[in-house]
Amino acid sequence: MDNVIRSQDNLRYRGWQKLLKKKYRDREGRCLIEGDNLIEEADRNGVKIHGIILKENAPVRDRTRAVAEKGVPVTMLSEKLFTALSQTEASQGALAEIEIPRFGEGDIERGRGGSGNIVVLDRLQDPGNLGTIIRTADAAGFDGIICLKGTAEVWSPKVMRSAAGSVFRVPTIYAGSPGELFELMERTGKKLAVTAFGEATGLWDAPIERDTAIVIGNEATGVGEELMRAADLKIKIPMYGEIESLNAAVAAGIIMYESVRKYTGEDRENAGKTE
Amino acid sequence: MDNVIRSQDNLRYRGWQKLLKKKYRDREGRCLIEGDNLIEEADRNGVKIHGIILKENAPVRDRTRAVAEKGVPVTMLSEKLFTALSQTEASQGALAEIEIPRFGEGDIERGRGGSGNIVVLDRLQDPGNLGTIIRTADAAGFDGIICLKGTAEVWSPKVMRSAAGSVFRVPTIYAGSPGELFELMERTGKKLAVTAFGEATGLWDAPIERDTAIVIGNEATGVGEELMRAADLKIKIPMYGEIESLNAAVAAGIIMYESVRKYTGEDRENAGKTE
Repeated sequence: MDNVIRSQDNLRYRGWQKLLKKKYRDREGRCLIEGDNLIEEADRNGVKIHGIILKENAPVRDRTRAVAEKGVPVTMLSEKLFTALSQTEASQGALAEIEIPRFGEGDIERGRGGSGNIVVLDRLQDPGNLGTIIRTADAAGFDGIICLKGTAEVWSPKVMRSAAGSVFRVPTIYAGSPGELFELMERTGKKLAVTAFGEATGLWDAPIERDTAIVIGNEATGVGEELMRAADLKIKIPMYGEIESLNAAVAAGIIMYESVRKYTGEDRENAGKTE
Repeated sequence: MDNVIRSQDNLRYRGWQKLLKKKYRDREGRCLIEGDNLIEEADRNGVKIHGIILKENAPVRDRTRAVAEKGVPVTMLSEKLFTALSQTEASQGALAEIEIPRFGEGDIERGRGGSGNIVVLDRLQDPGNLGTIIRTADAAGFDGIICLKGTAEVWSPKVMRSAAGSVFRVPTIYAGSPGELFELMERTGKKLAVTAFGEATGLWDAPIERDTAIVIGNEATGVGEELMRAADLKIKIPMYGEIESLNAAVAAGIIMYESVRKYTGEDRENAGKTE
């Protein structure tokens, strides 16, 4: 008997096809992840894996096999069907259907790195930038990311490829409006820091060591007016010569790490003090 | 009379087609650039523009028109031919054929930002990362970028889209081998700083304020062994939790800006001293 799904009309296959679209990911609360590494990371971070999807005749790698052996159902697809689901050029031949982790405000307050710092994304468009910022926030020990309406969706293949396992570790939540964000800032006692030109504090002098929400704006238009007006702090990254802006993910990385430097420096100083 | 080129056999069109391939770009010393912004930047930075190529029926924007009015020949292509040359999804309908700027060692020694710092790319593969690093190096006032064999080519459409006008301002040169790089380091009195795990100096304590070549390695395999052994300094970016690495362009940005912070801080300190 042939256990390989070959028909485009197969119901399970059609369900996975739908998960390529945001509309269905939102509705089902599930998404597809691709590759050995993400499958292992999902499992390691306690994400519910509904099934593993393998390409016919492709060698199964150890890390995916290890997850399958924990009792996750495995389905084999014909090369043609698998390729229609796969979003990478050099596919390893392994996908998984997972439950999208649902983070809430409480997850962000939990405090990963200790500084209480978070990132706010104001209509960030590029999936690669979003994924890269999630990855950097993970490395910098940030508590989480708040995405304002108009920001790219976290659970798309491109974002997950850039973010890798960090999508499962860094809480990402959505705020429908700036007003909702401001309320959250007040409840959690965080200050809002935006990047700006003109009248602004130079990055090295900016007090961003703790309880700061660093706002990264849209790639073309920057931070929106409402946030600009509400900002507690305006920061300027020093730039030389004629250049006016940095890539959004790089700017985010530079500011996040400057906050880490300040926070850990403060900690080092405090560690030296005795009462 | 119809002045629009419509035939795929047109010799000029075929010449432009060839410039989509690295082999011909190398041979001809020319490449295509796309969009209003890059055309204006090329002109402003003194790059020789051989011709402007417009899409039939597309509105010509002011900045491209301004360059054309300086006496650059303009050719109109049918929509079909133009689309075959264009590498962007939402094309503005303007391309230009330019002379590839040829940078030499002397350009790198010229000293843009004053610190004498440069970036070395060791087989960096991703065009987006390369372009982003060029853009960041521009903003950070770095003197230039040395690309080791195996690094992506600077003059491809994807790299130029990420780097924007910075490709014309930041000198990029190629070193065939690590040996060639080491000789250049010796001649110019620069030290080699690599990113590393394990035994390494934490970024905040690393003396990278001046005359430092910061090496960014391949996205998958990192900095090569030969460079690792020859390094004067091994740097570690502090990371929290389980994450092991950052995106290459973000890591480069964080290190470059930490060097700027140290360099300008040193300058500030010196400025305060009187003898």
